[in-house]
Amino acid sequence: MLIALLPGDGIGLEVITETRRVLDAVCGDRLTYEEALVGGAAYKAMGHPLPPETLAIARRADAILFGAVGDPDCDSLERKLRPEQAILGLRAELGLFANLRPAKGFKELVNESALRPEIAGAIDLLIVRELNGDVYFGEKGMRKTDAGRRQGYDIMSYDEDEVARIARVGFETARARRGKLCSVDKANVLETSQLWRDVVIELSADYPDVELSHMYVDNAAMQLVRNPGQFDVVVTGNLFGDILSDQASMCVGSIGLLPSASLDANAKGLYEPIHGSAPDIAGQGKANPLATILSAAMMLRYSLGMAAEADRIEAAVAKALAGGARTADLGGTMRTAEMGEAVLRQL
Amino acid sequence: MLIALLPGDGIGLEVITETRRVLDAVCGDRLTYEEALVGGAAYKAMGHPLPPETLAIARRADAILFGAVGDPDCDSLERKLRPEQAILGLRAELGLFANLRPAKGFKELVNESALRPEIAGAIDLLIVRELNGDVYFGEKGMRKTDAGRRQGYDIMSYDEDEVARIARVGFETARARRGKLCSVDKANVLETSQLWRDVVIELSADYPDVELSHMYVDNAAMQLVRNPGQFDVVVTGNLFGDILSDQASMCVGSIGLLPSASLDANAKGLYEPIHGSAPDIAGQGKANPLATILSAAMMLRYSLGMAAEADRIEAAVAKALAGGARTADLGGTMRTAEMGEAVLRQL
Ligand SMILES: CC(C)[C@H](C(=O)O)[C@@H](O)C(=O)O
Ligand SMILES: CC(C)[C@H](C(=O)O)[C@@H](O)C(=O)O
Repeated sequence: MLIALLPGDGIGLEVITETRRVLDAVCGDRLTYEEALVGGAAYKAMGHPLPPETLAIARRADAILFGAVGDPDCDSLERKLRPEQAILGLRAELGLFANLRPAKGFKELVNESALRPEIAGAIDLLIVRELNGDVYFGEKGMRKTDAGRRQGYDIMSYDEDEVARIARVGFETARARRGKLCSVDKANVLETSQLWRDVVIELSADYPDVELSHMYVDNAAMQLVRNPGQFDVVVTGNLFGDILSDQASMCVGSIGLLPSASLDANAKGLYEPIHGSAPDIAGQGKANPLATILSAAMMLRYSLGMAAEADRIEAAVAKALAGGARTADLGGTMRTAEMGEAVLRQL
Repeated sequence: MLIALLPGDGIGLEVITETRRVLDAVCGDRLTYEEALVGGAAYKAMGHPLPPETLAIARRADAILFGAVGDPDCDSLERKLRPEQAILGLRAELGLFANLRPAKGFKELVNESALRPEIAGAIDLLIVRELNGDVYFGEKGMRKTDAGRRQGYDIMSYDEDEVARIARVGFETARARRGKLCSVDKANVLETSQLWRDVVIELSADYPDVELSHMYVDNAAMQLVRNPGQFDVVVTGNLFGDILSDQASMCVGSIGLLPSASLDANAKGLYEPIHGSAPDIAGQGKANPLATILSAAMMLRYSLGMAAEADRIEAAVAKALAGGARTADLGGTMRTAEMGEAVLRQL
């Protein structure tokens, strides 16, 4: 099976290198790879953050393993040339509408969290975020008001089919976990959210075994601090999901540990760590590769039908952590390659 | 001076009653009051959550002291009749564009926070949230797509004048505090945010003594968990401010402690606790009145020019807490009226 390998910017290259070693050890030549530039690296070499060659490789691959994009050199470029457009472009072009972000407290690491250990340790939730719609992809621009003043605008919207397909992912994943789904919106203010809530309620008739609740986004942001252990699956739109999933990851402790999957309707997917390109430590061999290694495990499970191999990788990561392997973000001194080796030894 | 007293729904009445006793003790007959119905209570009595009589009283008052709105009986009403419309209507009609939400760790209460005590204890920030624009007040509605499907939409926008007036509040309050301003947006995705960022940068030339930084909203939600002590003043739009200010309050511990002010261009304001109407404990005499009492102190300071009286109230609250006064939300057994008396005794 063919993997598109897109390291991107900053620490992306370093974390992908270690992940590739783990995949080689576990899957050998059952996987083949095509590597391509993306993000700031692609802009600098080829004038666009998502060059057609890269998109073509991503299209023909069975799954995409992605490092990170983001490069301070590119911050003043016009929006469509900035590194972030690569990830937004891949999501849109490939129809990757379902973003799954599990957040689970590793018991060895509860002391890394800013939350009290007993609260951080109880976290075991999955955020299901819609990725192809909302205010991210509506019409947007700058215009002049009647008074001649500059005005920025962005249209937020969802239609019922967009809501239904992500809500189904929420119900299905809840059914496969602890059977609880919390839908997050701002229906007391937004019509987009009112439609969201209506459609989720309509669909719930098909999932009588799933316990559905609704929460306003401001309350959800509070509850994720107060008592994140109350959540099983959280389903929400693109913008609220962006905010809440980053918040939830930080509740676990280091964001160097958390993987994500972005899936299309046929479970083809893009897999990436939730952390960014970390330009401040790029090239220094200090980055934690575990989030990317765990993303590769998700890839084996969700897109490649290799669940046993995914289990092996996840068990090896847990054992490495239990054995005391710690990169700098976890309060240790291990380098990126040493953490990769610690995982390899446990396979 | 005339105060419009709007208790609203649920625990609103109970917390306003105690606050009134404190104000009577401190200000005596220098303040006069007109009381009016608002929210679900107003809908039930008069058919509208913000009746014209109530709005008229709010207009002619020098300041408004507000309890809380929200009533489960009203959840299925059409949007414009729901209790929340009362607070949105007051903000819009009175031009209350600047919402100030201080969040500060009370050292006696660091153990109430879900964050580690040393992290919670370091919180001392002020969120300045824009209240009259953004996706809250743009055109919104339900329509059909070309394919005949239901679609909800809401237009997000800001013009440069709207951004500038709230940004000035951010710079001015930062100058009066520790001199640091963090502007939160999502400029990597939203044009509304790009304009926001451009205008904030333009204005910063007038405030060379304020240290300005910019943060994406997803990162801000992470940083408020990881290290909230890094923030002094945070300025942001209506939607992001809704989410982040509730999150920040919860980081402090109980939301039963946190006051807020919503000011117009002339420092006339509406003052309210950040908590809601708490229908589950309404009428039981269990609610914590401190957030409302502290809101009244903000009212004396910002709208009524009575800073010494505000100081007296805040000192009395701190002493009551130091003396061990605790309502149920703080792990204690005191009733609403007993907490009111604990503050009165310290005046
Ligand atoms: C880089 C940015 C456009 C992106 C987003 O907002 O979706 C990122 O924050 C994420 O969550 O993957
Ligand atoms: C009640 C609701 C409309 C309101 C808001 O979203 O502004 C509330 O959450 C607040 O923050 O005051």
